[in-house]
Amino acid sequence: MISLSIIGTGNVAFHLANAFSSVQGVQLNYIVGRSTHALTDFKPLAKTTTDLSNIYSSKIILIAVSDSSIAEVSKKIKSTNSLILHTSGSTSLDILNLHNRRGVFYPLQTFSKNKHLIYKEIPFCIEALLQEDVLVLTELAEKINAKTFSINSTERASLHLAAVFSNNFCNHILTEAKMLCEDNNVSFDLLKPLMTETISKAFLLGPENSQTGPAKRGDLSTLEKQRNSLSSRQLELYNTLTHSILKFYER
Amino acid sequence: MISLSIIGTGNVAFHLANAFSSVQGVQLNYIVGRSTHALTDFKPLAKTTTDLSNIYSSKIILIAVSDSSIAEVSKKIKSTNSLILHTSGSTSLDILNLHNRRGVFYPLQTFSKNKHLIYKEIPFCIEALLQEDVLVLTELAEKINAKTFSINSTERASLHLAAVFSNNFCNHILTEAKMLCEDNNVSFDLLKPLMTETISKAFLLGPENSQTGPAKRGDLSTLEKQRNSLSSRQLELYNTLTHSILKFYER
Repeated sequence: MISLSIIGTGNVAFHLANAFSSVQGVQLNYIVGRSTHALTDFKPLAKTTTDLSNIYSSKIILIAVSDSSIAEVSKKIKSTNSLILHTSGSTSLDILNLHNRRGVFYPLQTFSKNKHLIYKEIPFCIEALLQEDVLVLTELAEKINAKTFSINSTERASLHLAAVFSNNFCNHILTEAKMLCEDNNVSFDLLKPLMTETISKAFLLGPENSQTGPAKRGDLSTLEKQRNSLSSRQLELYNTLTHSILKFYER
Repeated sequence: MISLSIIGTGNVAFHLANAFSSVQGVQLNYIVGRSTHALTDFKPLAKTTTDLSNIYSSKIILIAVSDSSIAEVSKKIKSTNSLILHTSGSTSLDILNLHNRRGVFYPLQTFSKNKHLIYKEIPFCIEALLQEDVLVLTELAEKINAKTFSINSTERASLHLAAVFSNNFCNHILTEAKMLCEDNNVSFDLLKPLMTETISKAFLLGPENSQTGPAKRGDLSTLEKQRNSLSSRQLELYNTLTHSILKFYER
């Protein structure tokens, strides 16, 4: 039995608390938040508290707070034999350097409160100071049927940056595509099969082999025609991305 | 029985020729190309020819050539009672204005020669000068189980622009993400579940409601840290997209 407490009340904390509260072999002890209000949604899942001193009996203490708060929270945790984890892609293991037993449990996925997740499809990138704790992290991930990958802090920072490109930037591009559709009364949903195929091709053939479109073809007249119907924010994206595609394929 | 000839030897021509050569109710007569060499791959599918004069007995003549060549090809087709179509998202119906029976048959999808397509999942955007020809186009799409949507030339241009953002730009961003992974010896494949979820969320919740990441959070210290490990081409994309996300969500 792995006993676990979670510090944090954001989307990652919410999803992991949900997952771990309902599996065999994990005892979800406490969820710690700064205010009782933030803890409301967590009450059905475990005991909730604003007081860190409650949680030291847990084998694992998982810090699932914003990247900029990890150091501060880590310092507040007293010397303990618990394994202290954070869940951040862009933060080094060393930020937990007050603790001998420290590790990282980074789910490479995007979390929204109202979207169900299937954990067996989420890669968990794990790292620990002590080899024995790598095994604990593997076991923890197995409880929710997730796969683990041993990734050190430097590799994880690269992976997180690639995830920012993949998820954050593509999602923003889709937001602009939706605006274009709405401005012209065509349904954004028509683009779903295209995007599903784009992602399928990118991982099957490689995105560098799947590039199509006017920039890839060097079709300057279509590029010029399309520029005329864009807002200034869209035009900036259009020009930068088009320029980057032209440059990439002229090599 | 719909008799059909296709002009063109690119990816769209190849996939449509393949699809129409193997369904009931369509007689694929000729594939027309500029050279016998370009026509090699089409020989198993239909008669091939470099001579347009062969094809006037077909009920439908489908021009599937690059956008910049449509006008030229259209002019070469003599006056005929055939329905003349192009397949371009960014080109008006009017470019076929020498022909009384003209239409557009635009598959909103990305085509690569070596990737199998499932037509029932591809929206075909159709337009025709004559109402009776809209029915012919609907029937043609039904032969390959595709859904049709009546979209006029202005709407189609917007949709094509949104498709450029969605497919071409996201795919290029994935190319840069793959470069980041390769530069740092982490597997690009780890990002597949993330991207699958990103697309699922974008069409379920709306991409504007699914945005996450350091730019959305206004997490300037993570943004600054990430900038330090990028090439100049990646940095230009990073800065433009980050700026655009910051601007979009400050509204």
